Amino acid sequence: MYKSIPPKGMRDFLPKEKALRDKIASRIKGAYTSCGFTEIETSAIENIENLTGGDGGENTKLIFKIMKRGEKLSDMLQGEKAITEDDLSDLGLRFDFTLPLSRFYSNNRNELPNVFKAIQMGMVYRGERPQKGRYRSFVQCDVDIIGDPTPLAEIEILGAATKALQAIGITDFEVLISDRRLLIALIMASGLPEEQADDICISLDKYDKVGREGVLEELSKKGFDGTKLLDSIESLTFDTIEQYSPEASQNLNTIQSALGPSEIAVRFEPTLVRGMGYYTSSIFEIYSPKYGLALGGGGRYDKMIGKISGMDAPAAGFSIGFERICDLVSEEELGGDKEEKIAILVEGEEEYVDAVKFAREQEVTTSIFQKKKKLGKQLHNLENEGFTTFYDVSKSEYFNTGTK
Amino acid sequence: MYKSIPPKGMRDFLPKEKALRDKIASRIKGAYTSCGFTEIETSAIENIENLTGGDGGENTKLIFKIMKRGEKLSDMLQGEKAITEDDLSDLGLRFDFTLPLSRFYSNNRNELPNVFKAIQMGMVYRGERPQKGRYRSFVQCDVDIIGDPTPLAEIEILGAATKALQAIGITDFEVLISDRRLLIALIMASGLPEEQADDICISLDKYDKVGREGVLEELSKKGFDGTKLLDSIESLTFDTIEQYSPEASQNLNTIQSALGPSEIAVRFEPTLVRGMGYYTSSIFEIYSPKYGLALGGGGRYDKMIGKISGMDAPAAGFSIGFERICDLVSEEELGGDKEEKIAILVEGEEEYVDAVKFAREQEVTTSIFQKKKKLGKQLHNLENEGFTTFYDVSKSEYFNTGTK
Repeated sequence: MYKSIPPKGMRDFLPKEKALRDKIASRIKGAYTSCGFTEIETSAIENIENLTGGDGGENTKLIFKIMKRGEKLSDMLQGEKAITEDDLSDLGLRFDFTLPLSRFYSNNRNELPNVFKAIQMGMVYRGERPQKGRYRSFVQCDVDIIGDPTPLAEIEILGAATKALQAIGITDFEVLISDRRLLIALIMASGLPEEQADDICISLDKYDKVGREGVLEELSKKGFDGTKLLDSIESLTFDTIEQYSPEASQNLNTIQSALGPSEIAVRFEPTLVRGMGYYTSSIFEIYSPKYGLALGGGGRYDKMIGKISGMDAPAAGFSIGFERICDLVSEEELGGDKEEKIAILVEGEEEYVDAVKFAREQEVTTSIFQKKKKLGKQLHNLENEGFTTFYDVSKSEYFNTGTK
Repeated sequence: MYKSIPPKGMRDFLPKEKALRDKIASRIKGAYTSCGFTEIETSAIENIENLTGGDGGENTKLIFKIMKRGEKLSDMLQGEKAITEDDLSDLGLRFDFTLPLSRFYSNNRNELPNVFKAIQMGMVYRGERPQKGRYRSFVQCDVDIIGDPTPLAEIEILGAATKALQAIGITDFEVLISDRRLLIALIMASGLPEEQADDICISLDKYDKVGREGVLEELSKKGFDGTKLLDSIESLTFDTIEQYSPEASQNLNTIQSALGPSEIAVRFEPTLVRGMGYYTSSIFEIYSPKYGLALGGGGRYDKMIGKISGMDAPAAGFSIGFERICDLVSEEELGGDKEEKIAILVEGEEEYVDAVKFAREQEVTTSIFQKKKKLGKQLHNLENEGFTTFYDVSKSEYFNTGTK
């Protein structure tokens, strides 16, 4: 039995939706490009060991795995041995762009600039429980800089991300920044164990949703007394960071002062954590107070590429949540002139030659249609599809619909 | 163990390759759009029953199947029952755009124009044995018209396909056309069984590769004497088609005479077959004599949508083989001006503010770099990356590299 709807959590896009998505993507790419980034494309299918072996955290549980094929599969199914999930799959769909980029970089390092500024835009796939506004395949728009250990990388990345949002008319946002080294220092100063920092951070990350009491409760369930940690975080100001982590203070200061004069509001947010375990220092998020939503996030991940290639390379990146942004921006807001589109109408086959010839001579969009009996209705429909002009081949003349 | 190369038959694209691919895709899309087609996007993941249930022919054997997840999978693996390949998979990757388009159309029919002219561009996936120039994931660029039973559909589709090739500088091609109804009529007139027509056509399709003797041999192995069929095909001319199939003759005549005056060479080719079983009348291929290659193909498939939706709709389509074309076209041939790109050089953090400010004021592409000790080498590298202009923040002035 054929199903005409797409699989659960997947979507099709009608011409109008697709056009809007393309326009938004093209603006984002234009902004990224104007900041010196160049686009690459990596395979949407990765070897399964790469996907399951990393720091992908929760995401590794959500991988769409591709089955082995041919004899490899049939021999296994006909064999006597018990089969495990791992036996069955050799490939999987990417769930983000960080692992693919790191793999790409370690494979192509000699052909890339010393400071490599990459754009990646495309679909990623996660087998999440579908819910409103959450999809199993969605577009991410990433910028990453590999090879620059200085805060210039963070500055260029945040510059590109904010420029991209501005390019699609989103201007009321805040850039939130923090530093994982500061979080670690605060955890240690509160007498909590450094080696449990990742677990503590996961609870801390919920501060903006569940508040102080919620975080304390969750930490307590994990066996930690978070009172002192929460006290120090809540009393922390940009000026007192230095007491805990001079490196973080210096880093945040440099980023904030470089971007501040360009009218990009950068705010230090000590409860900002971001899930990924691979971040090593700066972490950031762009937040929309108007929508109460994060529009994207990122950070520095200096150890990731070394893990894959055996050769360390400093790296930082940012990912814009494309699907969220598509929900916020409308065609009208993006503007753009309505272009001329000519509908060429023929009555029969004997007019095809002239119709094709006329169409080929035009520099704007043309489309040839068989004239219908209910011409008024047909013209009305064509206008709704965006046709602005009508040409009658039998009379060799333009005509209007009479509706305007 | 991480692997840094992409999976077998899959590819990554470096910035230069990606830029060229994008430029070619954008020209193709521009040409398609200018002929009144609008782009849609369908999910790359389809329900597995849709992919395996159709007329995809050989392609259905090449599907990348996605494993079921969670309890559905683990219960099966832990259970006592023997497991088959079909049990394990609920989803799969699309292997072409025809099935997804038909599904899309039957799901969205009420929101689409009566005559729906669709563009689809993107990756499709086939688990083929990898070989030179053949990939397991590759881009197709399709145009289809649904809802038009007249030859206007074929004319508009071939018009769009040829315009797309011309837009990327490929002009020396021939449009080959035939009609499946003619093939069937020839088969019947030769005393061969109509119900074996598909099988006979598969052998006939190899005429241009293996010649008359080769086809006869293959047919003979299948138990057919193809002598009479080959005789009639070889002696067939555009004018004698009518004796076998008046409908095919009329159809081919109309298409050829409509396109001929627009300087598109349309040639009737009786041995043209095209693999897909779903074609119902017109079949076409665009052939490059210079490269000895088919650049794309298509045809009319009036029964496909009815099979999926239960409601018939006439349809015709054409697919450009994007990967082949990318191999034929170079950056130089596509032309385009070299754009200005400014490399902004800073000596230390105290210059970041000014650098960011300067960058934000420019209308062209800018990128900020830490000045290196070996400045000459750095500038040389930046020139190779495409930077045309250099700005020194410490001196607030432009400078040149001394290399030109």
